[in-house]
Amino acid sequence: MKLNEMSRQQLENLYQVTLAEYEKCKAQGLHLDMSRGKPGQEQLDLSMDLLNMHIDPNETKMDGVEARNYGELMGLPAARRLFAELLGVRFEQVFAGGSASLTLMYDLIAKAYTHGLLHSEKPWSKLDKVRFLCPAPGYDRHFTISSTFGMELITIPMTDNGPDMDLVEEYVKDPAVKGMWCVPKYSNPDGIVYSDETIARIASLRPAAPDFTLVWDNAYCVHEFDGDFVPFVNILDACEKAGNPDMVFEFASTSKITFPGAGIACFACSEANMDYMKKLLNAQIISYDKINHLRHVLYFKNAQGVLDHMKKHAAIMKPKFDTVLRYLDGEIAPLDIAHWHRPRGGYFVSLFVMNGCAKRVHALCKEAGVVMTGAGATYPGKNDPNDSNLRIAPSFPPLDELEKAMQVLCVCIKLAAAEKLLNK
Amino acid sequence: MKLNEMSRQQLENLYQVTLAEYEKCKAQGLHLDMSRGKPGQEQLDLSMDLLNMHIDPNETKMDGVEARNYGELMGLPAARRLFAELLGVRFEQVFAGGSASLTLMYDLIAKAYTHGLLHSEKPWSKLDKVRFLCPAPGYDRHFTISSTFGMELITIPMTDNGPDMDLVEEYVKDPAVKGMWCVPKYSNPDGIVYSDETIARIASLRPAAPDFTLVWDNAYCVHEFDGDFVPFVNILDACEKAGNPDMVFEFASTSKITFPGAGIACFACSEANMDYMKKLLNAQIISYDKINHLRHVLYFKNAQGVLDHMKKHAAIMKPKFDTVLRYLDGEIAPLDIAHWHRPRGGYFVSLFVMNGCAKRVHALCKEAGVVMTGAGATYPGKNDPNDSNLRIAPSFPPLDELEKAMQVLCVCIKLAAAEKLLNK
Repeated sequence: MKLNEMSRQQLENLYQVTLAEYEKCKAQGLHLDMSRGKPGQEQLDLSMDLLNMHIDPNETKMDGVEARNYGELMGLPAARRLFAELLGVRFEQVFAGGSASLTLMYDLIAKAYTHGLLHSEKPWSKLDKVRFLCPAPGYDRHFTISSTFGMELITIPMTDNGPDMDLVEEYVKDPAVKGMWCVPKYSNPDGIVYSDETIARIASLRPAAPDFTLVWDNAYCVHEFDGDFVPFVNILDACEKAGNPDMVFEFASTSKITFPGAGIACFACSEANMDYMKKLLNAQIISYDKINHLRHVLYFKNAQGVLDHMKKHAAIMKPKFDTVLRYLDGEIAPLDIAHWHRPRGGYFVSLFVMNGCAKRVHALCKEAGVVMTGAGATYPGKNDPNDSNLRIAPSFPPLDELEKAMQVLCVCIKLAAAEKLLNK
Repeated sequence: MKLNEMSRQQLENLYQVTLAEYEKCKAQGLHLDMSRGKPGQEQLDLSMDLLNMHIDPNETKMDGVEARNYGELMGLPAARRLFAELLGVRFEQVFAGGSASLTLMYDLIAKAYTHGLLHSEKPWSKLDKVRFLCPAPGYDRHFTISSTFGMELITIPMTDNGPDMDLVEEYVKDPAVKGMWCVPKYSNPDGIVYSDETIARIASLRPAAPDFTLVWDNAYCVHEFDGDFVPFVNILDACEKAGNPDMVFEFASTSKITFPGAGIACFACSEANMDYMKKLLNAQIISYDKINHLRHVLYFKNAQGVLDHMKKHAAIMKPKFDTVLRYLDGEIAPLDIAHWHRPRGGYFVSLFVMNGCAKRVHALCKEAGVVMTGAGATYPGKNDPNDSNLRIAPSFPPLDELEKAMQVLCVCIKLAAAEKLLNK
């Protein structure tokens, strides 16, 4: 029975029953973590052969570049080729970096502030106001980068096809709007894949700011856990064809392929952007860790090697997502007090509880020993206008713990809804 | 016979003989590189056991931190302990970073521009002028960082005890002077170890700028190639005792211990600075590569393990430095047309040819197939006021190539001097 069709007495009964369940949950003294998109232990174990790979002294030089010594600003050529193949871009467009794409994104924005980007009239630090488009729900660490530089964050609602493009097209008429955060495939947290039409409209934007920049975080480009690899649009190509060759920087990493925070990352951009960035990067770095580049290249060999490896992750991830959905479908759907996405890749299930209840559900979970990503974290300024969205990250806990955590979460969703309807 | 005691005829004879020697050098068609402080092949081979170390799945967690997963902003605790022991500082003062201390230095300066440092009144990007003290000859990449941010670089002459402190004490009275680059042990390129008195005066500076910052690049802290490890002053402690606890950031890395550009790096600073930096770094990085931290910790175990390893580098480096000095002492000293330092550690021999001759010597070497660091590179703006200093980097070429390169260099020094005295 739907909660909003219940009588007050029925609601009161439900509340009392759920409260008793909740007290039982608390009594278990759980310590469960569904807060971050961290791969679980089993996933880490998939790459032990990478950790312990044997490299011959005569294998350390590839394309004439000695991986063990200084040099080659753009990274080991073979690592750049691997990323180029994965992203479908040209070798010349790829810069192989350190272990974190987040850092490469931060550094891009930092350079926009200190030096300006290729088409900037002046460094952003010299501007009175910088505004940035933030499709939301979105990735909290993107918004944190914008916030740390003092940008004004503009919330763009997500639709099932990606960011609301009517709004985006309107906002980019403002020259203070300097860019947009995008997770185009299995968006964080909704798991939405931007539609071809959305991507075409993004690539064809006519921003007033000459240095408007898409931060295209392709974090989950090969991260299907359900079904085969889904090809994606080459955004560099799309922007170039739409007359915006320098409007996008694409990012990817192996953090959720091999080792989180210890994989290899890259950015890809137009050759003109690359020439500009190389001059600036030359002051910051001699070259990133080419030995880690080498390990990854020897381990995967090519893009197919990566896709094969992702199947192993999928086999671990799918049962976890199935568990999340089984609980939500079984416990919550009949009550009609929440809705959620059903992603086929990525790391999250995006859950929308009743308006005004997300913080309460989060607090109830926490009290019962289940840590979730903070309510509101998926919105700019950590401010969810509806106080509704919660991000479920099922990858880290083992399956048996995940079951327990979902039990608790469902009880908390029910309890918060009953509280709300009863004005408790 | 000294060149300045020769008659014009004697000089002319020397010139003709040297020119003939130079033509013979050119005819060899050499391709030799003495330009960068890159370890040589033999040195890279010293760390193959690190490259190929076996790590058990149950070894990947240390101090409760899983090296293979996200987390722990400050890096693997065991890596921080290792650096703390090496630098003689407290564990809490150490942040273990990625593979490059240069990047950590750049990022410090970048954050001073975008956010300001702990005691900044405003971000440096909001200031009309930022001036930075550059002891010279010095490290070109330090000066490049200052230049890329548009600082005014102030040359501070190096003495045999470190930077000319009378000048430094004078300059820091200017509130626009925001810091100083320092390589306190085996300075690049002179190989000078700052004296205790110099360090005491540095630690006791009373700069007008509240956010004046020493960038203390302890790049060669354990890099003796001649004799035993020489202990060094704990600059964090010295600054604290002098009432300047937050005035210094110290940097170090294993780039010239294990693998250049693929080792591990750190910075160390006061706890107050660390609290401030952690907040800013939290937007840039989840954590640097903790697997590489782990490898280094398992490989070295402790500071003594590092010192033992450095003895192996020394056995390779000493004959190279001996070769450089043997040529200079034998070929150049009797003519009194140059002087040079005799370092016991570090990576360079700093050579001062006759005023006005460094660029000429560099060009002559280049024409004969011997690449040296650009003349002037060791000065701010690449401008050596005397056009005299050349940096010899003997580590990269094998010994037999180094011999040939030094033969060529000596011929070029003589030729340039004779040209100058004969006004050719």
